[in-house]
Amino acid sequence: MSEPNLFDGVLAAGGVREAVSDTAWIQAMLDFESALAAALADVGLIDRVHADRIAEHCRAEFYDAAELARASVQAGNPAAPLVRALSDRVGDGHVHHGATSQDVIDTAAMIITRNAVGVVLEDVRAAARVAADLAREHIDTVQPGRTLLQQALPVTFGVTAAGWLIGLVEAAERLEAIRPTLQFGGASGTLASLGEGGVEVIAALARRLDLAEPVLPWHTVRLRIAEPAAALGALCGVLGTIARDITLLAQTEIGEVTEEGPPGSGSSSTMPHKHNPVAAVAALGCAIPAPGLVATLLQAGIQEHQRAAGAWHAEWRPLRELLRTSGSAAHWLRTSLERLRVHPSRMRANLAGDVLVERVTTELTPIVGRQRAHDAVTQCCASGGELVEALAEDLLVGAHLSRERLRELVQGEYLGSAKEFVERALRRVGR
Amino acid sequence: MSEPNLFDGVLAAGGVREAVSDTAWIQAMLDFESALAAALADVGLIDRVHADRIAEHCRAEFYDAAELARASVQAGNPAAPLVRALSDRVGDGHVHHGATSQDVIDTAAMIITRNAVGVVLEDVRAAARVAADLAREHIDTVQPGRTLLQQALPVTFGVTAAGWLIGLVEAAERLEAIRPTLQFGGASGTLASLGEGGVEVIAALARRLDLAEPVLPWHTVRLRIAEPAAALGALCGVLGTIARDITLLAQTEIGEVTEEGPPGSGSSSTMPHKHNPVAAVAALGCAIPAPGLVATLLQAGIQEHQRAAGAWHAEWRPLRELLRTSGSAAHWLRTSLERLRVHPSRMRANLAGDVLVERVTTELTPIVGRQRAHDAVTQCCASGGELVEALAEDLLVGAHLSRERLRELVQGEYLGSAKEFVERALRRVGR
Amino acid sequence: MSEPNLFDGVLAAGGVREAVSDTAWIQAMLDFESALAAALADVGLIDRVHADRIAEHCRAEFYDAAELARASVQAGNPAAPLVRALSDRVGDGHVHHGATSQDVIDTAAMIITRNAVGVVLEDVRAAARVAADLAREHIDTVQPGRTLLQQALPVTFGVTAAGWLIGLVEAAERLEAIRPTLQFGGASGTLASLGEGGVEVIAALARRLDLAEPVLPWHTVRLRIAEPAAALGALCGVLGTIARDITLLAQTEIGEVTEEGPPGSGSSSTMPHKHNPVAAVAALGCAIPAPGLVATLLQAGIQEHQRAAGAWHAEWRPLRELLRTSGSAAHWLRTSLERLRVHPSRMRANLAGDVLVERVTTELTPIVGRQRAHDAVTQCCASGGELVEALAEDLLVGAHLSRERLRELVQGEYLGSAKEFVERALRRVGR
Amino acid sequence: MSEPNLFDGVLAAGGVREAVSDTAWIQAMLDFESALAAALADVGLIDRVHADRIAEHCRAEFYDAAELARASVQAGNPAAPLVRALSDRVGDGHVHHGATSQDVIDTAAMIITRNAVGVVLEDVRAAARVAADLAREHIDTVQPGRTLLQQALPVTFGVTAAGWLIGLVEAAERLEAIRPTLQFGGASGTLASLGEGGVEVIAALARRLDLAEPVLPWHTVRLRIAEPAAALGALCGVLGTIARDITLLAQTEIGEVTEEGPPGSGSSSTMPHKHNPVAAVAALGCAIPAPGLVATLLQAGIQEHQRAAGAWHAEWRPLRELLRTSGSAAHWLRTSLERLRVHPSRMRANLAGDVLVERVTTELTPIVGRQRAHDAVTQCCASGGELVEALAEDLLVGAHLSRERLRELVQGEYLGSAKEFVERALRRVGR
Repeated sequence: MSEPNLFDGVLAAGGVREAVSDTAWIQAMLDFESALAAALADVGLIDRVHADRIAEHCRAEFYDAAELARASVQAGNPAAPLVRALSDRVGDGHVHHGATSQDVIDTAAMIITRNAVGVVLEDVRAAARVAADLAREHIDTVQPGRTLLQQALPVTFGVTAAGWLIGLVEAAERLEAIRPTLQFGGASGTLASLGEGGVEVIAALARRLDLAEPVLPWHTVRLRIAEPAAALGALCGVLGTIARDITLLAQTEIGEVTEEGPPGSGSSSTMPHKHNPVAAVAALGCAIPAPGLVATLLQAGIQEHQRAAGAWHAEWRPLRELLRTSGSAAHWLRTSLERLRVHPSRMRANLAGDVLVERVTTELTPIVGRQRAHDAVTQCCASGGELVEALAEDLLVGAHLSRERLRELVQGEYLGSAKEFVERALRRVGR
Repeated sequence: MSEPNLFDGVLAAGGVREAVSDTAWIQAMLDFESALAAALADVGLIDRVHADRIAEHCRAEFYDAAELARASVQAGNPAAPLVRALSDRVGDGHVHHGATSQDVIDTAAMIITRNAVGVVLEDVRAAARVAADLAREHIDTVQPGRTLLQQALPVTFGVTAAGWLIGLVEAAERLEAIRPTLQFGGASGTLASLGEGGVEVIAALARRLDLAEPVLPWHTVRLRIAEPAAALGALCGVLGTIARDITLLAQTEIGEVTEEGPPGSGSSSTMPHKHNPVAAVAALGCAIPAPGLVATLLQAGIQEHQRAAGAWHAEWRPLRELLRTSGSAAHWLRTSLERLRVHPSRMRANLAGDVLVERVTTELTPIVGRQRAHDAVTQCCASGGELVEALAEDLLVGAHLSRERLRELVQGEYLGSAKEFVERALRRVGR
Repeated sequence: MSEPNLFDGVLAAGGVREAVSDTAWIQAMLDFESALAAALADVGLIDRVHADRIAEHCRAEFYDAAELARASVQAGNPAAPLVRALSDRVGDGHVHHGATSQDVIDTAAMIITRNAVGVVLEDVRAAARVAADLAREHIDTVQPGRTLLQQALPVTFGVTAAGWLIGLVEAAERLEAIRPTLQFGGASGTLASLGEGGVEVIAALARRLDLAEPVLPWHTVRLRIAEPAAALGALCGVLGTIARDITLLAQTEIGEVTEEGPPGSGSSSTMPHKHNPVAAVAALGCAIPAPGLVATLLQAGIQEHQRAAGAWHAEWRPLRELLRTSGSAAHWLRTSLERLRVHPSRMRANLAGDVLVERVTTELTPIVGRQRAHDAVTQCCASGGELVEALAEDLLVGAHLSRERLRELVQGEYLGSAKEFVERALRRVGR
Repeated sequence: MSEPNLFDGVLAAGGVREAVSDTAWIQAMLDFESALAAALADVGLIDRVHADRIAEHCRAEFYDAAELARASVQAGNPAAPLVRALSDRVGDGHVHHGATSQDVIDTAAMIITRNAVGVVLEDVRAAARVAADLAREHIDTVQPGRTLLQQALPVTFGVTAAGWLIGLVEAAERLEAIRPTLQFGGASGTLASLGEGGVEVIAALARRLDLAEPVLPWHTVRLRIAEPAAALGALCGVLGTIARDITLLAQTEIGEVTEEGPPGSGSSSTMPHKHNPVAAVAALGCAIPAPGLVATLLQAGIQEHQRAAGAWHAEWRPLRELLRTSGSAAHWLRTSLERLRVHPSRMRANLAGDVLVERVTTELTPIVGRQRAHDAVTQCCASGGELVEALAEDLLVGAHLSRERLRELVQGEYLGSAKEFVERALRRVGR
């Protein structure tokens, strides 16, 4: 169970909410303590019976988040009071042996990151599947292309969706490449209290927690935080792009897609006629805060000596917020895509009449040179008259191209590699 | 009451935690609804009896944050379900008349900001009072000055504290200058459903909520968010500077200040000898995330048309986080200053022997020119020998200054306007 | 003259480019040195003849930026080699007396900020004038209101422009409130080498440079940097909002505004038919980088001791970039507004048929309660049939409102306080 | 040759300055045009003679950056006027065939990124080599460990340097993993004007430019920008950490390292005795602005439709700034490490007397439990008396440990796995 938060319906959507909850954090810290005791037993530093006894007490429901928060004021972090509470329950001296508070919290952060990223990836992959379906289904659906928010050459909705697909898949690959890594160094990062045995314990502990084994502790070298942060920030760029596309395509005047959610979705508190693409809007709202949080985590990556005075503490909330907001953005984007209804007839109807005039330039270029061709055709476009007529009557254009040919060029099909791009994208994802 | 959060002991410290809680937000939204009904009655658009009835139901304890969060998924914001719940309780049609969800949430954000900033200011002012006391008390306490983390000319601890004082006071003044402003525009910002009466209702509503009256709605012009964000970001720079100073002065090898907190404060979970300046460390940890949140709020300030699709939603959590982290930083910095014990003898003992050698340059300058003087003296410093001897034996320096004069210069008092600066600072704050 | 930069045509547009050039920086540093000598003479610390001689050499064209940049490697800042070069030219020992490099660069930063902000304000005020003209001219031009990128209740283009106007004017006021402040503290911030005279020199120097007088040096309390940074970041939010509005209104399918620039503006390198709102696009491109730069400046505001090791150096480029990009955004937005052609007929034609249905809710509310009214009308909208018919046939709606009244409501004028808001805005700016 | 910039001595240090210069950008854009013509010839779309002719004119020195900047105002980007100028020189119609401006600039950005990252990596690898040497040389040099800026258990300078080494090496690996990717899609991303041949041209063009081949154009999916941005931001965290460590270790009162640069390095413009670690300070000054630039690039990653209105333009300067500031940070950090002189005697002398008292806890733990042991020892530390005496006289401690054993514990060697960590680090980098 996790704490209520008034904005969570919108901004902590999907599975990520539980994955970064207080309970999840407490359990992750306890998993460290439990695995540490087991690892100490593995290498013979303590008796197995102690490890087993500790493991029994490493269940989040035995501890109270609010109580730990209050007690964290003394030492300046919540691991210290949790260790004390666990020690009190266990009643012997083998809890937390060799470790320091930052070992607990950093390793818990790695566990939380791995689990939350797993949740995020589920939503990203589901979104990618829908995008792949859309790309295949609409491989021949002509749609206006738009650059700088002006109609450009036509595209297909298939190639639009294929672009989304590749973005989602590549962003997912970056997240999959993250290698959450054990933190374990003790007071000054030398594992001094373990004598000669430190390195062996590291290996056993990493194995037990299924985390990568560090070469040495990374208490002030924060690449393990920077890496998921960066991958989540990049993902949010892709999610935000798709969400923005959907909100723009859903504009009343464009109407090329709508979100068809459960009854009441996207309704307005005041305007009965409104039908907002609320999932795409929420996805965008969750994607926008990511870069600022990434910046904070990168900035806090400048630390000092064996453990930092403040920069480390500055990571806790932003990491959690970043996982939460990225996961929510992924959840909402998946939801938006799953709700998406495409309107091919609106796409064709929206196509402006002059967008293919570039073809006239292309045809003229070998004859009169690209620049002269471009300039002449641009002038015809700006003339305001009927386009084929204007071109036919232009001295340069009309001299080389007939009305008939001009009509073929300006009104024909002109989609280049759009279809092949869709096929490449589908092959790329094995569909 | 507010939700537990594992990191809140450190990162949501002081009064600001309650000031930005779910309960506080719900109450602020209800304050808007209650004041709106009263304002509608003020200008005769509804009967007073309706307003009174609505007011009775505008108490946060009647509503459940978790329930509102869940229900916010439909409309995409928590105001819509709150309005519905309030309407259900009241049972008539006068709730929320003329308003839109963003009116409720933006106005609540202003109320929350005003209240939370008030809490922050209390801590900043208390910190300033301690800084003023330190400045006065240590007006003559000589301390090594340090630039680029190297000893420079001596200062006094008084002038160090006076610099802190002026920073705190000026940052507070920027916060005091914020003018939280009513938001009220209805569906498209024209107050259409109020007919001719909209402007009158604005005036009455602003008066009742003690908020500034807007010229027209600011649904997509977000200066009212940018302004407190910027002032809090600037404050965190000052708080972070002072906290960094304290952590540096408290270094084991420097020892010029220590934090003397209640038993157990600053202890380590492993190292019995440790005595960390935990309040200053926490202050720094809370100050560092502020700029990233400010950036998010400024970036989300780029919105569109009558109300934004996503950028507005992107403000909610970062604003709350910024208030919380700034307030916590202020609370911890105040705590650190209140715990501060100053060690003048360590300050004097730390003074390196050569820091006054600039005076030799100054004395030589009128005779041989600044650059020649500077170069000769620099060379003597780098020679490694006893300084006064090295200077006396230098051809240029020795030709113009006696050993005795050199000794006076290098070992005397040299504090310039330090005392006057402290006095100016104390006068500036009326002490 | 300032250095070429390939992207400057777009990203360093308008007067701000020269205002932050190398030449401007060198001159500002020399203005500090010249005014310092004069101030020293004012208070009798040096002879006037020395000050006059120094002033003669304080002209930027005597110094080479590339040379200074190269030489700055030694001391780690460009003020040190400039002081040396100036001393060499003057040939006596009175240059830079009492000052440190940071005094020179910080004061120059204040001068540059003041001048660049002056340039920015010219463009913002010019943009505001155009916005005011548009607001007045289109006070009755009905336009679709749009929330979450969906049509909402109608507005007027006048009230849209009035919102822009107030945003520009209020952002300008924040910039006008900045008080650039002298920096002068010497090596450790005590003005030690000036003996008792430091405070008097501060007053004279501030007067001569027309800068505010500091209570004491602010070498590590960076509110004087944070303040203009924040105001520029907030301005960019407003500029970005207006630019986004223009790009959206100029969409091919919307066509409510176009930019009519000089021949060739907004043309495409490939597509002859394109007519991009290039000034608005450039304004947005220049506004977006501002928040990241503000975050850097706020973060660098955490400094230490008497002068910071790195955080200070981290300010130089971001401050310059922020002034440049904000100024360019202002220049482009002004340009876009000056080029703007408004198409009222498209605005009216774009109005969707059902946006006024909220009025039916309002009319029903006193009779059946807001929530029941809202739910019934929402269902009618979603039915897909002709709207007035659907409403008339609804059991609840049809029971209370006639077809005729429904038609009046759904097809009438419904602009609430739009006109009054425009008038308030124009009064606010004295037009 | 690149433009002067007053701050470049400090903030554009090392090879990266030329790698991101105007000349480099122009050449990279011309490389695209030249390779495009060659690729068109490769697949038979144009005659080889045209490609060869175009190649002759693709030399940066033929074009003027200032002129291009001026002309870029029309189309809103510098590629358009460059294409026009190149076409004018070549005089036929085959220049830029099939491409759009964004293809040119994005591909140039990839080339610039690849080259600049190459330069950055050289400095990072050189820094890593020095760190490795330091780690090996000082594998047994005892140094105070410091956590939260307080002395903790001792470490070795070897393990400190090994931590730097692994940070540098891992950050370099992330940079090496970047795959700069061709951009080529034409007006709307469909390569319409190349008919069926588009995909073949993509393959030939990617091969010629030695860039990765995209599945389809990535005009609005900006992972190719986000990826190097993130890797550079993470690198700057590591560089900043090492630089901060050096500035802290070089403090006058600590003196464990000094920078020994060429004469004049680190001198002060006023204080003859100063010897600033100027390279480390500059490294920190260059590292701090990186996260804000990363945030901007990630935020600008939210784009729309086929090509973005503004967000794309917003990338140009921040990408360049980020490459420049990261490269400068790497250059300065390498310089600092190369200048580093280590003072082992100061490290040993600085060791405080009580840092090993944790060992007493460890020894007591199996007997009395960890928490009781920790509490008793903490109390002894706080007592103020001579430590071994205080411990011996404590009821709990004294009952189990003799004075002799206590002395052994508190004054002995206690370095745990420090040596093994250094060896692991050296093995990891193959040294």
